[in-house]
Amino acid sequence: MAIYARPIARLVEELAKLPGIGPKTAQRLAFHIISGTRENAESLAEAITQAKEKTIYCSICSNLTEADPCSVCTSVGRDRSMICVVEEPKDVISLERTRFKGLYHVLHGAISPIDGIGPGDIRVKELLERLKDDTVQEVILGTDPNVEGEATAMYLARLLKPLGLKVTRMAHGMPVGSDLEYVDEVTLAKALEGRREV
Amino acid sequence: MAIYARPIARLVEELAKLPGIGPKTAQRLAFHIISGTRENAESLAEAITQAKEKTIYCSICSNLTEADPCSVCTSVGRDRSMICVVEEPKDVISLERTRFKGLYHVLHGAISPIDGIGPGDIRVKELLERLKDDTVQEVILGTDPNVEGEATAMYLARLLKPLGLKVTRMAHGMPVGSDLEYVDEVTLAKALEGRREV
Repeated sequence: MAIYARPIARLVEELAKLPGIGPKTAQRLAFHIISGTRENAESLAEAITQAKEKTIYCSICSNLTEADPCSVCTSVGRDRSMICVVEEPKDVISLERTRFKGLYHVLHGAISPIDGIGPGDIRVKELLERLKDDTVQEVILGTDPNVEGEATAMYLARLLKPLGLKVTRMAHGMPVGSDLEYVDEVTLAKALEGRREV
Repeated sequence: MAIYARPIARLVEELAKLPGIGPKTAQRLAFHIISGTRENAESLAEAITQAKEKTIYCSICSNLTEADPCSVCTSVGRDRSMICVVEEPKDVISLERTRFKGLYHVLHGAISPIDGIGPGDIRVKELLERLKDDTVQEVILGTDPNVEGEATAMYLARLLKPLGLKVTRMAHGMPVGSDLEYVDEVTLAKALEGRREV
């Protein structure tokens, strides 16, 4: 005999497919949803289908958007001379919190030979297309500070520099609020290397 | 300007309402759902509405079920002389894993004067109703080993003993696989108190 009633079992199973949600958490969430009101459950279910249905990729920057082109690409208040290249839409969210005023380009991945992801599998072609007119003066490489992100940044730097653009990489260094004692030596070396006069 | 596209913002907001899901996790889950296939998103949404719509409370034991009475209450293979009283439907799931063969009664809460929850707010009346015929010989108090659970167990014990039933409480003691050194002193004292000959 099944331990769960069938609809509960199915919900637990579906929730456990989400990243970072194990069977115990899935069970807790399922019972929370079931013990809540019908409106709350329907509201969550609708938000899921709507988010999937109504979200498209911006034809300019490839970010997720409700309307194409996205609100950043159509905004009159942004600095169009600057494009920050990032790996994922969630990176745009993080950068928007810093009040960065340039434009974005979302690659949807990073070059990773070990996973068989080459430059053709991420949106590099689309980036080159955007650089054809002379509006953009600077490309900021905002890929993740890990092996794949660095490889992608290096590849893009080599590709873009010959076009006469200013190509920059976001600084590596000590995270604000961290403790020097606990910063790893690679980061510390990068922080020393990138020291600036005060 | 909003940082998220509207459907994403709504999904993040809905997900963040779930217990233990903070804004960062909600964002991660939302992007996972959006980057997945439409079928996966729809399947999850449907599981949520279905679980809520198709799950009812068993009119006998108050557990969550698809059909009333539930599969435990209607099963011919269960020991009907024994009822284990628990606080929540998820406790039944845990007990079913132990291959307990009696019946259950789900209280849907525990007595907690500080939260204004008295015996009238949990399903005590329904339990008394079930004990009216003489099938049940033993009531096992399986409420949580915390203040509210103990208070509820004590209350039920006082209520049920005069009915001439065997009333038992699940044992407190050292969790299996734990380390004596790290067991708290209250649990350790209970473990000593409940020692058995081997």
